[in-house]
Amino acid sequence: MTDTATPPTARTQVRRVADRADYDRTTLHAILDEAYVCHLAFSDERGTHCIPMACWRQDAHLYIHGSNGSRLIKLALQGAQVCATVTHLDGLVLARSAFHHSMNYRSAVIYGVFEVVEGTIKAQAFDHFVERIARGRSKEVRPGDRHEMAATTLLRLALDESVCKIRTGGPKDDAGDMQRPVWAGVLPLALQGLAPVPDGDQPALPDYLQQWETTR
Amino acid sequence: MTDTATPPTARTQVRRVADRADYDRTTLHAILDEAYVCHLAFSDERGTHCIPMACWRQDAHLYIHGSNGSRLIKLALQGAQVCATVTHLDGLVLARSAFHHSMNYRSAVIYGVFEVVEGTIKAQAFDHFVERIARGRSKEVRPGDRHEMAATTLLRLALDESVCKIRTGGPKDDAGDMQRPVWAGVLPLALQGLAPVPDGDQPALPDYLQQWETTR
Repeated sequence: MTDTATPPTARTQVRRVADRADYDRTTLHAILDEAYVCHLAFSDERGTHCIPMACWRQDAHLYIHGSNGSRLIKLALQGAQVCATVTHLDGLVLARSAFHHSMNYRSAVIYGVFEVVEGTIKAQAFDHFVERIARGRSKEVRPGDRHEMAATTLLRLALDESVCKIRTGGPKDDAGDMQRPVWAGVLPLALQGLAPVPDGDQPALPDYLQQWETTR
Repeated sequence: MTDTATPPTARTQVRRVADRADYDRTTLHAILDEAYVCHLAFSDERGTHCIPMACWRQDAHLYIHGSNGSRLIKLALQGAQVCATVTHLDGLVLARSAFHHSMNYRSAVIYGVFEVVEGTIKAQAFDHFVERIARGRSKEVRPGDRHEMAATTLLRLALDESVCKIRTGGPKDDAGDMQRPVWAGVLPLALQGLAPVPDGDQPALPDYLQQWETTR
């Protein structure tokens, strides 16, 4: 193991279809950097919960934020263990047999405990989030004022206990099914940007949004 | 409350931005029927986990399947409480202030305990899953044989304890920011189908896949 990898733990050791596991940080960062949302699992006295949260990566942490009063933020401040998962669905895999149908995907699962981020690092991290949404925009918008910043908790999760799982490519059919006259292959899927919708009268679309429909 | 709604429980009562909550089954079904994947949270002696799983809805249940030996399937058979969440990210909401940036989304959160589905209903449910992927396809593929069916556990979760949360529309800026010269609006996002990729030499694309790139 080098420092570019996150060594498997009892929780991140993949057992099912283990050849899809990837512990490389480059892979992990690429998956996280394409995401706007993660799913966060945590438990409290009412049970185990799974909620979608906006997220972004900076260096070796995944960041989320929330209103001070929210259940998740309160629990996180108490040191609750969480599991954050990002999944990109890349396609449906159509095999010649029902059983071998599958999906292409890239997922990242991170275990840990959130830490609170405060001070100048907090303001910088929010700028980073706005830049993640649209590069160049953090200089144009009104920055968070004292009250807004105080009302919002910024949390980050170290990426040390994590694992990615990836499936790519076509169907893996049984030899006996290969001649069956049914279309087999992949139906690709991608989260794509559609035409921006202005909020009433607006200045011209800024340069940093011109490519929204073609790349993100 | 009518039978078209799922009454809020202690777990599904939305507290943050409560006007985004929706307990209507029509809303719930629409969100689930657009999904190929859910995120499943559950807990065991190692902690709380969050994993992506293929899913589909049939009537008043969400279905998943897995290999008999998988951790989740074993836990589910022991009656573990789970939380299944489906999220569609519909757009990034760009406000005039950093603080009011937001996201448009539709999410569904379901709490419960899985039940095992067996017998003829099991085979019918797998046909339904293949039809969900591509209507007409379950008649063309080789159906699961005795060994394949026996190696796979089919589970379903009743939709009774569930809640949807939805945000739509443009940014909600403070009055004092409305004249700020920065582009404000929505950057829509959608999971779209791209051109099918055949697995080697293939018969012509069947009718049921002709529209993959334009509708799903």
